[in-house]
Amino acid sequence: MTLDELRDEIAQFAKDRDWDQFHSVRNLVLAMVGEVGEVAEILQWTSDDKVDELLESGGRERLAEELADVLIYLIRLADRSGVDLETAVREKLSANNQKYPADKARGNAKKYTQLDD
Amino acid sequence: MTLDELRDEIAQFAKDRDWDQFHSVRNLVLAMVGEVGEVAEILQWTSDDKVDELLESGGRERLAEELADVLIYLIRLADRSGVDLETAVREKLSANNQKYPADKARGNAKKYTQLDD
Amino acid sequence: MTLDELRDEIAQFAKDRDWDQFHSVRNLVLAMVGEVGEVAEILQWTSDDKVDELLESGGRERLAEELADVLIYLIRLADRSGVDLETAVREKLSANNQKYPADKARGNAKKYTQLDD
Amino acid sequence: MTLDELRDEIAQFAKDRDWDQFHSVRNLVLAMVGEVGEVAEILQWTSDDKVDELLESGGRERLAEELADVLIYLIRLADRSGVDLETAVREKLSANNQKYPADKARGNAKKYTQLDD
Repeated sequence: MTLDELRDEIAQFAKDRDWDQFHSVRNLVLAMVGEVGEVAEILQWTSDDKVDELLESGGRERLAEELADVLIYLIRLADRSGVDLETAVREKLSANNQKYPADKARGNAKKYTQLDD
Repeated sequence: MTLDELRDEIAQFAKDRDWDQFHSVRNLVLAMVGEVGEVAEILQWTSDDKVDELLESGGRERLAEELADVLIYLIRLADRSGVDLETAVREKLSANNQKYPADKARGNAKKYTQLDD
Repeated sequence: MTLDELRDEIAQFAKDRDWDQFHSVRNLVLAMVGEVGEVAEILQWTSDDKVDELLESGGRERLAEELADVLIYLIRLADRSGVDLETAVREKLSANNQKYPADKARGNAKKYTQLDD
Repeated sequence: MTLDELRDEIAQFAKDRDWDQFHSVRNLVLAMVGEVGEVAEILQWTSDDKVDELLESGGRERLAEELADVLIYLIRLADRSGVDLETAVREKLSANNQKYPADKARGNAKKYTQLDD
């Protein structure tokens, strides 16, 4: 499934329900924030070394649902903002390749501006 | 570009830099929250009726960059959580079709549980 | 009610329930993100000019609950991170006074670094 | 420093700069989201067992600044929404006392609705 196909399917869904009126840019940002909050909630009372256990006992399914919601609002937000998300992500990945050359960035979480330190 | 292709490209990028060690589930949630914060920041001092003006005067390009960052972390987070994002979004879209029948939901932002009210 | 009194009351509440074990720094960040998501959700399907109407028809009470939750986690997070929130906010307000002199900043939402433009 | 004193000081700061026009309810929600994103960013590439180290090596000071920013926007948001934050937090703490009786909730992160399980 391509990003463009998803964008079109979600747009059609909104159009069929006359929901474009609710899908303003700022509304969609707030809706995405709400869904990201639900992702955080799933992982809030565990700890790094117990995440796998949580995922194995039902957490993965709940997380999958919330991540799908984030993605749907993200794609819709890009669409309603006139942002071509596929182009944007291509350009970002290409910029990241320049900023973080594999040999300098290996094993290093420093921000790219500090890679020469 | 499909979600699966994106997932693989991002995974390869992380692998080449030995960054899997930083890409724990909770780290990626926090990273995604950080990028969502940057999306919010772009739109915080405007108002609904001035969003277009903001987008026209450089806001769209800045927004495109931040939305790409959110997408990259979202895809990486799904991958590292063992969530098949493509399947998750398909199931969610199909569930939404059931929950919000076009004839009942038309022009109505009520949560689906209230659609019979 | 002072911030310090609130901090102590919340700390005692957690201690009485043996909840310190759950209140790690990163857990509390995620919990705060979750509550901020609920704040966003209340305001997501309205528009700037209908916010008052929403607040008048039950929104204010729901918002009050979620804002209280954000505050509680924020205070707890500061406490568990060894951050003196009262000092931090005093210093920030004082710094803001320097950065945004009233005569230059009047009616202007530009970031302080641009105030001389 | 009480919450009410803080609210008044922040309100005066905004008034002196004619910033009430920017401080709409939804703008302040987005601004708070932006600051919460900066909190998350500080903690995103560490792990639970290295948080103390991060805090000791400059992280605490950066965190203090961002937590102060969250608090300032939170207080301002309550004020502009007509929410009495002090009352809201009192009521929430009192409700939590009812919902999570110390003897049942001890050492247990389950949501209160599940405490009888």
